[in-house]
Amino acid sequence: MQYVGHKAANPTLATLIEFGPENADFLETTFDDLESGREYQPKYPTLWLNVHGLENHKLLKLIGLRFKLHPLVLEDILNTQQRPKVEQYGEYLFITARLVSMDEDGQLGSEQVSIIVGRGFVLTFQEKPTGTFASIRETLRTSESQIRKLGPDYLVYSLLDKLVDRYFLVLEQLGERSENLDEAINASPSPEQMTEVQDMRRSLQYIKRSLWPMREVLNTLQRDEADFFHSETQLYLRDVYDHTVQLIETVESLREMAGGLQEMYLSLQSQRLNEQMRMLTVITTIFMPLTLIAGIYGMNFDNMPELHWAGGYYAVLGLMGAIAMLLSLFFWLRRWV
Amino acid sequence: MQYVGHKAANPTLATLIEFGPENADFLETTFDDLESGREYQPKYPTLWLNVHGLENHKLLKLIGLRFKLHPLVLEDILNTQQRPKVEQYGEYLFITARLVSMDEDGQLGSEQVSIIVGRGFVLTFQEKPTGTFASIRETLRTSESQIRKLGPDYLVYSLLDKLVDRYFLVLEQLGERSENLDEAINASPSPEQMTEVQDMRRSLQYIKRSLWPMREVLNTLQRDEADFFHSETQLYLRDVYDHTVQLIETVESLREMAGGLQEMYLSLQSQRLNEQMRMLTVITTIFMPLTLIAGIYGMNFDNMPELHWAGGYYAVLGLMGAIAMLLSLFFWLRRWV
Amino acid sequence: MQYVGHKAANPTLATLIEFGPENADFLETTFDDLESGREYQPKYPTLWLNVHGLENHKLLKLIGLRFKLHPLVLEDILNTQQRPKVEQYGEYLFITARLVSMDEDGQLGSEQVSIIVGRGFVLTFQEKPTGTFASIRETLRTSESQIRKLGPDYLVYSLLDKLVDRYFLVLEQLGERSENLDEAINASPSPEQMTEVQDMRRSLQYIKRSLWPMREVLNTLQRDEADFFHSETQLYLRDVYDHTVQLIETVESLREMAGGLQEMYLSLQSQRLNEQMRMLTVITTIFMPLTLIAGIYGMNFDNMPELHWAGGYYAVLGLMGAIAMLLSLFFWLRRWV
Amino acid sequence: MQYVGHKAANPTLATLIEFGPENADFLETTFDDLESGREYQPKYPTLWLNVHGLENHKLLKLIGLRFKLHPLVLEDILNTQQRPKVEQYGEYLFITARLVSMDEDGQLGSEQVSIIVGRGFVLTFQEKPTGTFASIRETLRTSESQIRKLGPDYLVYSLLDKLVDRYFLVLEQLGERSENLDEAINASPSPEQMTEVQDMRRSLQYIKRSLWPMREVLNTLQRDEADFFHSETQLYLRDVYDHTVQLIETVESLREMAGGLQEMYLSLQSQRLNEQMRMLTVITTIFMPLTLIAGIYGMNFDNMPELHWAGGYYAVLGLMGAIAMLLSLFFWLRRWV
Amino acid sequence: MQYVGHKAANPTLATLIEFGPENADFLETTFDDLESGREYQPKYPTLWLNVHGLENHKLLKLIGLRFKLHPLVLEDILNTQQRPKVEQYGEYLFITARLVSMDEDGQLGSEQVSIIVGRGFVLTFQEKPTGTFASIRETLRTSESQIRKLGPDYLVYSLLDKLVDRYFLVLEQLGERSENLDEAINASPSPEQMTEVQDMRRSLQYIKRSLWPMREVLNTLQRDEADFFHSETQLYLRDVYDHTVQLIETVESLREMAGGLQEMYLSLQSQRLNEQMRMLTVITTIFMPLTLIAGIYGMNFDNMPELHWAGGYYAVLGLMGAIAMLLSLFFWLRRWV
Repeated sequence: MQYVGHKAANPTLATLIEFGPENADFLETTFDDLESGREYQPKYPTLWLNVHGLENHKLLKLIGLRFKLHPLVLEDILNTQQRPKVEQYGEYLFITARLVSMDEDGQLGSEQVSIIVGRGFVLTFQEKPTGTFASIRETLRTSESQIRKLGPDYLVYSLLDKLVDRYFLVLEQLGERSENLDEAINASPSPEQMTEVQDMRRSLQYIKRSLWPMREVLNTLQRDEADFFHSETQLYLRDVYDHTVQLIETVESLREMAGGLQEMYLSLQSQRLNEQMRMLTVITTIFMPLTLIAGIYGMNFDNMPELHWAGGYYAVLGLMGAIAMLLSLFFWLRRWV
Repeated sequence: MQYVGHKAANPTLATLIEFGPENADFLETTFDDLESGREYQPKYPTLWLNVHGLENHKLLKLIGLRFKLHPLVLEDILNTQQRPKVEQYGEYLFITARLVSMDEDGQLGSEQVSIIVGRGFVLTFQEKPTGTFASIRETLRTSESQIRKLGPDYLVYSLLDKLVDRYFLVLEQLGERSENLDEAINASPSPEQMTEVQDMRRSLQYIKRSLWPMREVLNTLQRDEADFFHSETQLYLRDVYDHTVQLIETVESLREMAGGLQEMYLSLQSQRLNEQMRMLTVITTIFMPLTLIAGIYGMNFDNMPELHWAGGYYAVLGLMGAIAMLLSLFFWLRRWV
Repeated sequence: MQYVGHKAANPTLATLIEFGPENADFLETTFDDLESGREYQPKYPTLWLNVHGLENHKLLKLIGLRFKLHPLVLEDILNTQQRPKVEQYGEYLFITARLVSMDEDGQLGSEQVSIIVGRGFVLTFQEKPTGTFASIRETLRTSESQIRKLGPDYLVYSLLDKLVDRYFLVLEQLGERSENLDEAINASPSPEQMTEVQDMRRSLQYIKRSLWPMREVLNTLQRDEADFFHSETQLYLRDVYDHTVQLIETVESLREMAGGLQEMYLSLQSQRLNEQMRMLTVITTIFMPLTLIAGIYGMNFDNMPELHWAGGYYAVLGLMGAIAMLLSLFFWLRRWV
Repeated sequence: MQYVGHKAANPTLATLIEFGPENADFLETTFDDLESGREYQPKYPTLWLNVHGLENHKLLKLIGLRFKLHPLVLEDILNTQQRPKVEQYGEYLFITARLVSMDEDGQLGSEQVSIIVGRGFVLTFQEKPTGTFASIRETLRTSESQIRKLGPDYLVYSLLDKLVDRYFLVLEQLGERSENLDEAINASPSPEQMTEVQDMRRSLQYIKRSLWPMREVLNTLQRDEADFFHSETQLYLRDVYDHTVQLIETVESLREMAGGLQEMYLSLQSQRLNEQMRMLTVITTIFMPLTLIAGIYGMNFDNMPELHWAGGYYAVLGLMGAIAMLLSLFFWLRRWV
Repeated sequence: MQYVGHKAANPTLATLIEFGPENADFLETTFDDLESGREYQPKYPTLWLNVHGLENHKLLKLIGLRFKLHPLVLEDILNTQQRPKVEQYGEYLFITARLVSMDEDGQLGSEQVSIIVGRGFVLTFQEKPTGTFASIRETLRTSESQIRKLGPDYLVYSLLDKLVDRYFLVLEQLGERSENLDEAINASPSPEQMTEVQDMRRSLQYIKRSLWPMREVLNTLQRDEADFFHSETQLYLRDVYDHTVQLIETVESLREMAGGLQEMYLSLQSQRLNEQMRMLTVITTIFMPLTLIAGIYGMNFDNMPELHWAGGYYAVLGLMGAIAMLLSLFFWLRRWV
């Protein structure tokens, strides 16, 4: 059992919320010592224990003992590179999901959220506090919230819904970035843009890799055969499932757009090359013959009759002008100019 | 419950049509206040309530109460970025579809159409009036129409058929545009054309993303296990289903054509580059040696015997001509000219 | 019910063939008025009505009434852009297939063939006479033909077999064309060839789009659960099914070959560009220094001692020769020449 | 029933081998007239009739009558372009497979081998003698061979095993060729290599097209539901099946390698172009200014004071040297030299 | 039965470990002669026989006889190019897997590990000692290890887990290499990098080819229907299965990254070409007209009035400067400089 994740120490912090449908049925406590908690009996029907930071192995082991978690579950909670999955362990379901975020530099970050749902309790484990579930806690405090009424399974739905919503935010940012890149490339293509496209592709690939299994998780939950979810809650899960499908399609669109950006870049580059080549060819073709003529009449032969003609110089200038005009005409006709 | 869609306010407008198979069984009313309608009892067997504009949340809530719609349904009606889907909610089916359109600039637009079909009633919700269903209303007014005879399920078929027909129009326009582009690229390739190809690809991608789930919707309806559709109507649904399959194949063809346009563009560009390069090489190769010769006889050495030969000048001109002809022959043999 | 297809009017022509296994059981009539035919009772066990041209809507309606065809079937017969499909309508099977052909310009054409098979009758509808089924009619006239013995299902097999055989012809032509193109590109690449490759790809795409559903049609027929086909005939259908699979694989090969042609073209173009570039670089690199030297000794400074040396001119010529030879050697070592 | 295959006449040659598990139970006869054979009753439990050459239609018909083969089977034996398949016809299984070979020019060849296995007999049909099955005949002659013990189904396994082994040989040759090409391209890329890569790809495509159905054949046989194969033999068939899977993966690897060769070729070409371009640009950029300076001081103006300076010539030479060095430095800093 | 593998002789070495859950239940012996072992009866419930080196065919045959292994199993053990698979042979399961490794040059190596698990015994066969399973042996020596408690199936899990862990190591190395390449290409692209990318792609392809069947193996074991694995061990197998899925996704990411590197390389190359071309065009366009002017005034015509103007020379120099500046301005406006 070894912790694999953010190196920076996030002090472990456990928040316990107990609630029931009634107005008074609500209790919220924060602590980081659960020793005494082994015998603790909850007062209200539903218990939600949220743990931030995974460094306190002792606490985790205690939680494992208290809720009879399988050693593999504890290992998976600590191994924070898991792909989203749902696994049934007799009396409880173990769900891992990813919480994505994008910092101001457009760097994609993600951390693991582990959710365990059993009869009457929900355990959540996060690597560090992100405030994603703050609004759910807020809602819980009001006695009229649906979570209070519908219990642990609806709470799990609310958590997953929040996690999926984060993907929408991230994809929106990526969409904007892709449109900005599109404009920038059309304005003046540069290889830095290609590095950025590659970067975007990598982010999209990463998101895709966590969304596909997330969809499977939601599909499994929605058809939940182990009866952890009421049929009413399953309707809501179907809704989140639809969202992941929509997200996957957006990812695919963005990936195709990124591919389009690359093609656009390459065709603009080849267009520029063509343009420059055309210019070079036109210039060279016009000036080379003229330079040759000038060179010929710069030769020092004793016997060059043209040199002694009165209008020789003007005739040669005229010839040069004629050649230049004829060649220009030729290029104009070929649409090179 | 929040409205996500066209910002411009489209005043909500509800049209109620009641009908039965008999000639006289027809009633059409337009209103935007349904307060009194909560107790309203329809006179004829089938009721079709069509709502344009989704800004009047109060009206929508009233409709929701009157027809006992699930909150998630109302949310999905307002969230107008849904992908097409069909969901069964006990007493009614909830269908969302997309109505595509293309403006004169070739910009693809789409809006959501939500359809709810229950025993004896059909509800439709659109973001704004588009006239797509006008012909259905017209048909309904004549007592001999099949919709009057076959009831709500055939009405739903007619609505979906109209929606699918719109895709044919849009794809036809895209097909024409693609052929125009093909000709234009072959005439003279320019990077603007590539931007247009990218644009077309994006439109096709968008259409594909709404057609695939639409096909699933029709497949589900056609096999409808919840008995909302008569077996006779299912034959017609199979027909619309076939149309979506045909549409999907057309989209795939157009996508492949767009890919072909890009390849054509690139190969034309590389062809042009080659042509210019060939010209440049030929010109340079012929004129450089001649210019060198002229340069040599332009040197000012005291002792250059050729300069004093009587026919020196003519001999050098002849040499130049010979070199030019030999090089031209060389290029002609290599098929460069 | 509206006709969508070849604009040129093909007068509708109906041919009725009745036959049984016995030698005398054969009757062939051609007519274009079926009015009287509504009460017509066939004499022999199997009836084959073949209709060429779909402009005579009245005739089609009469046939529809006589054989109790569903309105959707008549609509599909007239809508001649259907993809191949098989649909069961109670007492009969409705099959649409495509008859492909290639004119001498390599333009792919296709028309729809609709086949209806019921107990004791086969109806076929084509847009115009093509002679594809002539040999079947010929075979039918001899009492020993298997079709006479095995009845309508074997007749349908024979029709489909003929239709599938046409694909072999077309693909053979495309295969030859692709080989010709291969040779032509290797001889001297030109952008017209790319246009032809694109054209070929489009044809292959079109064929693929009609072959895939055709395979499904044959697969469905071969497993026919509605008992229209004897098990003996199903063996033969399996054979045609195998042919479509073989055809599909040939299409895929040809598509890959077409892709290979494009790559070949591009690599030849880039090869040529390289060759020209090499030549240009070699010429420029050799002549530029020589021209500079000639230019230097063409300067008019008063004090240029070399100009007054007796062997100055020859020394400079020698220097030029040496430089040219050294540079040539350099390029030869770098394998540029 | 028409023969489609190698045009050169291969005289039909039939070899009959009868055998049983006992030492003495072995009889081998060669003949090309089976007329008398219609009543022939085999002495030993298993009979293997191997036919080389398919031109003798009469013989084939007789075999067909003797073993009650379906007309479609005989047709498929003669139509030698079949894809591998297995078909059950009541009392016997009909298997077609392809025997691949590669001549010394790397040209891929293949011929059809048809195998019919029934209770107590195996029939094999080949287009011409290839010696592929010689070792099996040799093994059969020794009474201890497993084929003698296990009967017709193990004989069929041995035949298929030999056919599949041939693919390994061919793929090994293609693998070597691909490695040689890899080296050759890296040494000096030329368009002939691309032609060879295309050729290799075509061969791989061809092999793939016969391996995929071969895998299906073996999969079907291995699960044989018609009881032609003992469970012991099925273990051996599973082994051959594994070999085809391995072959398919090797084909895919080689295809990807071929794709890699093309990309390598193109990137080497573009690398070369870049190198040449760099050289051309450097040479041009250095010599053009120098040539201009020489040209300026070659002008014939009366009033050009520099020309009359004592050190003018040397000053200009110095200027030229300085410019050349500065430009070289510039290119060196930009890593162009 | 023939050995296909590492040519260098690895002397065969067999290690026998017997163990049971109790502290004292442990026995470890090493030998390379099993002759006497045919009658050997194990003392403790579980027996693990590990064989290094496959050259001693006699020993293998003895093991085959002792454990009643099918001849095909022995053949597969010796044929060390097998793809991972699991096969059930009545009383035992036969598993082949691949042990991957990467040497310091980045060359991927792999060898076959064959595992046979039956009631109470596990046999493992490796080509040469690699130390991969050393830690498992170490763990076994302590009586508290889970393997001692859970028996042969958990031992097999531990072996497979070790094998899968090796893939993580290799992919990590490939990931680092890919990032180094990315930086190197961005710094200065060279064709050697492309060779390395191709090499990496080949390694990834190879890994993919062994991971996909490995996943199937683990999937089969996890659902094991033949009851070789306890349900507790199956939970652990599910965990290893998840690891292979994660590995496959990592491979796909790396493959996509490798593709991205190639595109990056090509776009950098085209960028460079463009840059050089731009420079060449600018230089040529500016200097050619100037050189022509110099050439014109270097002509030797008798009658060239400009030559005799007092300020002629300076006027021409001024003209040259003006032209150079105008052209520079032109290029600056076009963003070419």
